Formats: sequence, C-alpha cells, structure tokens
Amino acid sequence: MHTCSLERMKDKIGTFAKYGDAGHGGITRYSLSAEAHLARDEFSRRMRAIGAVVETDDMANVYATLPGSEPGLRRIAMASHVDSVKNGGNYDGILGVICAMETLEAVAAGGIAHRHPLTAMIWTNEEGSLYPPAMMSSGVITGKFDKKTVLASKSVLDPTKTFGEALAASPYLGDEKNRLSADAYAAMFELHIEQGPILEAAKKDVGVVTCVLGMVNYRIRTRGQADHAGTTPMSYRKDALFAAAQALMYLHEKLDELDPALVYTTGEIKCHPCVHTVIPDEVDFSLDARHEDPAVIARVVAIIEGMPKEFAGCATSYERAWARDTVYFDKRLVGFVKESADALGVSNRYINSGAGHDAQFVSYMMPTTMIFVPSKDGHSHCELEYTAPEQCAAGASVLLNAVLKADAALG
Amino acid sequence: MHTCSLERMKDKIGTFAKYGDAGHGGITRYSLSAEAHLARDEFSRRMRAIGAVVETDDMANVYATLPGSEPGLRRIAMASHVDSVKNGGNYDGILGVICAMETLEAVAAGGIAHRHPLTAMIWTNEEGSLYPPAMMSSGVITGKFDKKTVLASKSVLDPTKTFGEALAASPYLGDEKNRLSADAYAAMFELHIEQGPILEAAKKDVGVVTCVLGMVNYRIRTRGQADHAGTTPMSYRKDALFAAAQALMYLHEKLDELDPALVYTTGEIKCHPCVHTVIPDEVDFSLDARHEDPAVIARVVAIIEGMPKEFAGCATSYERAWARDTVYFDKRLVGFVKESADALGVSNRYINSGAGHDAQFVSYMMPTTMIFVPSKDGHSHCELEYTAPEQCAAGASVLLNAVLKADAALG
Repeated sequence: MHTCSLERMKDKIGTFAKYGDAGHGGITRYSLSAEAHLARDEFSRRMRAIGAVVETDDMANVYATLPGSEPGLRRIAMASHVDSVKNGGNYDGILGVICAMETLEAVAAGGIAHRHPLTAMIWTNEEGSLYPPAMMSSGVITGKFDKKTVLASKSVLDPTKTFGEALAASPYLGDEKNRLSADAYAAMFELHIEQGPILEAAKKDVGVVTCVLGMVNYRIRTRGQADHAGTTPMSYRKDALFAAAQALMYLHEKLDELDPALVYTTGEIKCHPCVHTVIPDEVDFSLDARHEDPAVIARVVAIIEGMPKEFAGCATSYERAWARDTVYFDKRLVGFVKESADALGVSNRYINSGAGHDAQFVSYMMPTTMIFVPSKDGHSHCELEYTAPEQCAAGASVLLNAVLKADAALG
Repeated sequence: MHTCSLERMKDKIGTFAKYGDAGHGGITRYSLSAEAHLARDEFSRRMRAIGAVVETDDMANVYATLPGSEPGLRRIAMASHVDSVKNGGNYDGILGVICAMETLEAVAAGGIAHRHPLTAMIWTNEEGSLYPPAMMSSGVITGKFDKKTVLASKSVLDPTKTFGEALAASPYLGDEKNRLSADAYAAMFELHIEQGPILEAAKKDVGVVTCVLGMVNYRIRTRGQADHAGTTPMSYRKDALFAAAQALMYLHEKLDELDPALVYTTGEIKCHPCVHTVIPDEVDFSLDARHEDPAVIARVVAIIEGMPKEFAGCATSYERAWARDTVYFDKRLVGFVKESADALGVSNRYINSGAGHDAQFVSYMMPTTMIFVPSKDGHSHCELEYTAPEQCAAGASVLLNAVLKADAALG
C-alpha cells in the first residue's frame, strides 16, 4: 500500500485557501472568476512541475495527465471542482482537486508504476452559484444539459452578463476534443467532503460511497381568499398560510412513518400577498424528498398526491417539479475504494450521497465512484467547513490506492 | 326626515369611477396622482356649483364648506378619501366623499336650514399605497405622525421620489391655517364601506360604528440550523419552518379558545435562506390581533409571550411591533346615527371597525363617528368591491340626518 504525504496535503489546503479568501475563514470563489483562475493557475503550475500535461476543453474543464506505461490504454480520471458558493469553505470541491493532485504527486515522487495515464481534473462551475445550474459542465459533457442554454445562463449578480461571455474570456477555454469521454477515459473517481454528520458520528475517516440518492421535488400549494385582517371574522376566513401550516404538519406526520433513512425538506415557502394586514390567499412551499429505494420514493409520492384536497377551507394542489432515480456507482470501483481503505487501516463505512455531484452525471458515461471524508458538525456550503488534515490525507491515500487498483484491473 | 337622491348618488359613483379606471371594473388612484387630481377637480367643481367655498391645507386636504345660519359656530365635517390601493375598487374611501358631497347637495337643493357651516372634505393619502404610511394626513394633523418624516416618505415604485415632492407639485397644496382643528370644527363624520361580511350576512343596510378595535402586532421568530437537504438525517435537523408551522398551529389553537369576536392574522412570513435544498435556519411571521376589549388583547399577549421556548429543536422568540388601544367614537354622534337610521327605516346594527380610518385619529381631537354600508362578499381593496346604489343612498341619507341632528344639538 502507498500513502500520501500529510505535509504536502497541508501545504495545498493552506495554499488554495488564499484564492478567494473572504477574510473570515472561508472563501468566495465563483467559477471562472479571477479567484478561481488563480486556483487553476496554481493547479496547472504544480501539475506541470511533476511532468503532467495540462489540457482544457470547450467548457474550460482542466485535465492534468501523467502518462502511463502501457500504450493504448485510456486514462483514469480523478476530478472535482475549485469553485465555491458565496462565503463557502475550504473543503467542498477543492479537497477533491487537492487529493487528485496529491495522488499524481505521490505517484511522481515515489515513481509508482502505473499502466494507464492518470488525470487530475477540475470541473468548471459545479456549484452554479453565479451562473446556474449546478453541475453545469458534467451536465453538458454527458448530454444532460443543452450547451447553448447554459452558455446563455445569466449571472445572478448582474443579469447583463452570461456564462458564455465568462467562458469566452477565460484563458482556460479549450477544445471540445479534450472532453472527458468513454473513448478516452476508463474510469472517474471523485473525492468529496460528506456534507453531513454521518461519518463524524460514526467515527469513520472515510465513506465508501455506493450511490447518489434518488429524489423527488414537489411544489405544494394552498389557495384561500385574501381578506382584511381587521374586518373578517375568523369563521369567514380561508387563510392559505394556516392551511399550508396544516399541510406541512400533515406531510411531516405521514412521511415520518416511512423509512428512517428518508430525508425530506420544505426549504422554500412563498406567501401571497405577504402583508401583515391581509389574510394570505395563496401559499406554496417546496418538498424535496430523497431515498435510495424507489419503493420508498413511490410511497412519498403517494402521500403527497393523496394529501387531503382541502385544509382550513383552502384547496390544496401539487406539482411535481422534478425527480431523479438513484444513481448507483460502479461496483468494481466501489470495491477498490473499500479494499484500499481496509488495507490502509483507515476506518470506513458504506455511505450514500444525498447531495448531487458531477460524478452522478459521469456515471452514465463510464465506471465512476466517490470517496467521502468527514465534515465536522456536518457543515458544508459555509465557512465552518472543516476536515482534519489527517482525514484529508487518509482520504487521499484511499484515492491513490483505489486508482492504482483500477489501474491494475481495468483494460 | 330628509332623504338623499338615488339618482345623484348613481351619477357621482359612475363619474368618480372614471378617474383612474384600470379597465376591468376598478381603479388605481394613488394619492396626489393625476387621476386623484381629476377626482379632486370633479369634487371642487361640483361643490362650487352649489355655493360651497373650497379651501385646502398644507397637507393638500380639501374642504368644501356651505355657510351656516348662526354666526360664530364651528363647522361640522364629513370626510373620507379619494385615493385607492393598487387595483382597488369604486367604493373604499370615495363613497365617503360622495356621501359628504351628496349631503351638501341635498342641503343646497332642499334649502335645508342648518346653523353650523357644513364641510365636505377629502383626506390626502389615506391608503398610503404609494407613499406610506396609511392615514398620513390625519396622522400629521392630529400630531400622531411627524410632518417632516412623512414628507420624506419615499415612493414604493420609485425611491428617488418623495411624498414631499408630490405635495409641493400639487395644485391642492394650501395653508396650514385651513387644517381641520377643534377650534374650527365641532364634529367629524366618516362614512365608509364595512370591508367585511357582517352587515351583508345580517341583512342590514347600515352599520352604526361604535369603535375602532384595539390591536397588537407581533413578529414571531423561530431559529434553527441551516443544513443540506440531502445529507442531513432527519434526527439531526433543526428546521425553522417546521418549527414555525408548529408555532402557528399552537397559536391558532390557543387563540381560538378566546372570545369569538377576536380576529387574528398571520399574514406575512419570511423564510431564510428560502432555498429548496437547504433546511431553513430562520423563519419569522407576523401576528395581528384585534378586539374591542383590552382584557382579551391582554390574553392574546399572554398567549404569545407565554409560547413554548422551543418547537422542533428551534428557539422561539417574539417582538411586539406595535399596539393601539380601542378608540371609542363619540356617544352623542353615535346616537345621532342610530336615531337617524331608525327614523329613516334603514335596517341597521351596531358594529365596530376592525380596520383603521382617519376618523380614529380625529377622534382624539373632536367628537367623531363613522357610518358603515355593506361590502358585498366582504370585499375591499380589490376591484370586486360593491355596495348597491340603494345602500349607498341609504347611507347618505343616514349621514345627512345625523349631521342635521348634530347641527341642532351641538354648540
């Protein structure tokens, strides 16, 4: 078994934290921003220094490749992203890139033999924070998103600017022929922070990810009657917010009877007219539910769609916004991750991903899997993100050995 | 007993509906807008035509006065407003002005003897739709609002414009010495639509208003923990929206145990960050409660302030936004309204006002009261506002006779 360098890991974590440093422990590093370009420059410099060849594609994804010993074999990629949400932390995304770099650095420093070319990769605009949607480039490359549409995506800060303009202005804009593809790549690994509390609570340093959870997303609406807050007796009211509170309580009660692994969230609520002196006439809220088992998701759907037609005199309705099936990662790659962690003596457990990642799109194209490391207190998308350097290095070592196992096994 | 003219009433209702006609049955007539000035011009023209003297004050309130027979007596005013909310109806406010005009027209046409000067009046900016707050001019004149502050009030449509600028540009800007005051006025009457369903349900054509309800207004907040919708197990969550739904249900349950005449409303809700993939960390909603009896309001306050400190693991807190005591109208004037309605054979009942009106501020300054006419289906502040012409004329006749009773009785 090979191991990565804790010192090199600390150095990289500290260095990348400077690019977009917001001054209070975290970063704001929107994709293709000046800060993100500094991080890409750092990546390219370090990768070239160990002999890797740096290429970019038409979505400005960056690929740094060390050649393999056996001609004709496809590359094995390790990929994540350097962009962040607004006031994000120093681990979400960037740690996956750092671990990919570390893997190549360990291979180069140790002269570790490998048959396939090994590629450390940066995905453009995984967060979609400035230019929605999230997972933009993997979506385009795998055909989930229309490229023309995403090029027209407007900046959430300045709607006169588009993603296409930012892309055209980027020194990392490259050629479509360099895209990650099944012809050129045999597998992809993505290391990421868990973004939840499970590994920390279980005292495990690595999560062997088996799938990205299936989900459904609904909008649930209650429709009442707007009337004056001071002049309408209670018995005459059709209060859409009171009805929405009842619908929300009803859904919690019913959904809580399903599998304890189900997660569901009512994160967004809109109230009309939302004036303190007017009884609300229309309220709608989101319901996002995720579970590995489609049978459980089907029961969620049945509960939502079988909801009472009326609460507090207000008609209820629902609209399915979208849904996705559970995406299972490649069993062989999952096995390589598990064997590597066990052989290294890194405490680990199987886990699923409740969040979406580029890997879920790539898995439709080639064997793909993910490795999680713990998130302190479950934090992510905030400056409080933290994973101990030792856990980061343990994750990198698991990645290194899993990639080498894939290198040995794959054609 | 004297009666007003149904034909004249219909004519005025139809004429004023043209000023600000939004094209689908209602009006948008912000205070001091071009449309509102057309309505003021119509008012002034008609009042001058019957021999009334038109004056304006420093808030652009308009006063049309017919002289009385007994020198030295103060005026008796009948007042309401011509401004509307956005997409308002043809009755809220304007009907009170029309009935005041009709009273003077009936007096002039019938040569009805009266001792006091009688004044039909338009209040500037009762709605506060374009320039908050509502009841602006009566607030300034009675010292409830600071004039400098309201002059600086910004347009909700264009924050570069202030109410002070609109006032300075109005041809109706006049002199402070013309203000309604206790020195110059002996009483004020305001006729208004009910804005609720009570008169219609009781099949009464007139409401004899006794008071404007006391009220308290609170903001209630729940504070949880923002976490990822997909990666946070249910048992780890502190969902501020789920907590707010529980708080809302709790408050409904407790408040419903109080007096059936209590009205309370949770009209506004804010959710942070209000993103469908994030568990809300902070939610706050408004609670507006109104009742005539301060003891009932005190019990409402006790319920809010005694609410559980936590729902669903989220801390609750509250903030009292404002409160007002019940404003009782002048008993003699209320009596004149009741006697007039009874003598005219107009079906009537006592009623209170859950909504605020200029009359409530004026009642701190001089004997004041209100007359309500029915609102079809309880509608107000919308294009569906409707009161049958016969009910409008009945209200005008009650106003006319009540004013004449006051004219006979007051010094």
